[in-house]
Amino acid sequence: MTQPATDPIAITKAIFHQAPFVADIGYELTRVEPGFVETRLTVKKRHCQHHGFVHAGVQATMADHSAGCAATTLLDPGQAVLTAEFKINLLRPAKGDALVCRARVLKPGRTLCVAESDVFAVSDGTETHVSRTVVTLSVVTIPEGG
Amino acid sequence: MTQPATDPIAITKAIFHQAPFVADIGYELTRVEPGFVETRLTVKKRHCQHHGFVHAGVQATMADHSAGCAATTLLDPGQAVLTAEFKINLLRPAKGDALVCRARVLKPGRTLCVAESDVFAVSDGTETHVSRTVVTLSVVTIPEGG
Amino acid sequence: MTQPATDPIAITKAIFHQAPFVADIGYELTRVEPGFVETRLTVKKRHCQHHGFVHAGVQATMADHSAGCAATTLLDPGQAVLTAEFKINLLRPAKGDALVCRARVLKPGRTLCVAESDVFAVSDGTETHVSRTVVTLSVVTIPEGG
Amino acid sequence: MTQPATDPIAITKAIFHQAPFVADIGYELTRVEPGFVETRLTVKKRHCQHHGFVHAGVQATMADHSAGCAATTLLDPGQAVLTAEFKINLLRPAKGDALVCRARVLKPGRTLCVAESDVFAVSDGTETHVSRTVVTLSVVTIPEGG
Repeated sequence: MTQPATDPIAITKAIFHQAPFVADIGYELTRVEPGFVETRLTVKKRHCQHHGFVHAGVQATMADHSAGCAATTLLDPGQAVLTAEFKINLLRPAKGDALVCRARVLKPGRTLCVAESDVFAVSDGTETHVSRTVVTLSVVTIPEGG
Repeated sequence: MTQPATDPIAITKAIFHQAPFVADIGYELTRVEPGFVETRLTVKKRHCQHHGFVHAGVQATMADHSAGCAATTLLDPGQAVLTAEFKINLLRPAKGDALVCRARVLKPGRTLCVAESDVFAVSDGTETHVSRTVVTLSVVTIPEGG
Repeated sequence: MTQPATDPIAITKAIFHQAPFVADIGYELTRVEPGFVETRLTVKKRHCQHHGFVHAGVQATMADHSAGCAATTLLDPGQAVLTAEFKINLLRPAKGDALVCRARVLKPGRTLCVAESDVFAVSDGTETHVSRTVVTLSVVTIPEGG
Repeated sequence: MTQPATDPIAITKAIFHQAPFVADIGYELTRVEPGFVETRLTVKKRHCQHHGFVHAGVQATMADHSAGCAATTLLDPGQAVLTAEFKINLLRPAKGDALVCRARVLKPGRTLCVAESDVFAVSDGTETHVSRTVVTLSVVTIPEGG
């Protein structure tokens, strides 16, 4: 019988792979530190819009989920975060072999947490900053057994 | 040899199905009028996050794409829209058999267009308002042959 | 000795005039209903930016404060709201004799409340929609005697 | 007869003091560099809300105006910027003797420019980060003689 994770870093890693939509799109967690995560997506045709750029929704999902994970690294046991709102500014068309997202907590809190996520398109090893997202997360207590 | 569509409503319908990410997730276009579209998604497990609610990214993609389509219905031939930014406020957890999104143009324009999208979760035929998104779109001229 | 107001409508009216910045700029409360307020500003030169339009900050302050008041009408005694975030989309240049703002609650809540504010510029009795703002408010408990 | 300024830094300084609302509230420009400005406000009672914190509207106006000035430093002669939208996240209650705002351009552009502004409350020489704003600005051509 496995014990549930109690270390916030371990919880963040566990949560990352539990969200079916995140697994379906193919995001990977490449780095976790207190208040920070880095994620990666190998870009495929299915991730694009009709002009061949990565769809804003793929970036928004990555930015939101990464911000949630960055916040999760700072939680107490028994807490979780839910996204209250986010705004994404699309800075440049996203074209490349991969996306990298770096998310960091701007303000931890007992009831609200604010984090920001930068997404970069990677082409031939060069990163281009393609979007900036600021996310507000609600800190909630998970019901026992939930 | 088929002629390219010149009617904005026909163009909107054509664009809707051309974005691979939109087709991949499974959104459908159910209504188009000048300045307005309605879209629908049959919810599957792959669209959810780890608590079983529809992922914020699924709603954000739907809200963004529907807003872009609503704006497209008002364009001149040879124009297209690109999302500059959007903010989504998640009002309630999204649980249900389907999502319905209604997007309308708040302000058409020559260079910028603002639209808003409301997403509803449908359960046993009852709609619950789950998110509100306001989107800024850049109006761009498509290069000939592009 | 006066009793503190316990009726949410009365509290909203009292709060409106207690904020020094709101009094300084000159906003007036013209209508209060459960979940809704209307406010008004007679435009003076001091409210404008360098092209002669009403400054975005004047609209943002009006939208934020009106949203907070709309939320306050639905609170329990001993509660107050603090703005967590807002986004304002400026739809058209604001020119006129007065601004009118109508704010309504989109989603009341125990910890978070979401409201939206529309600002209209009034010129010769005609209203033009100049901005749309969506606001997230934190519901907090006021310490006794606070 | 004075010549109009053609240097973007000189234009930014000139514009800063031309907006009546900015002068009325009392913001000062303390630093200008290409793509960056720093501004300051000595906090007075008239800038506060009813709990004694600096009003969100005072921070929003400062963040918006500073972002516009940071963008202006990178314009060509004959261009100006107008705010299309901004979102402000209020991270902590703002209490102190002064506010300092630092605004930098995230993405310059021919038609749209994105900038971010951080506001800090200064108390006894110590800065506390109180808000983060991301602003989208439209680049427009000023009519000759305008």
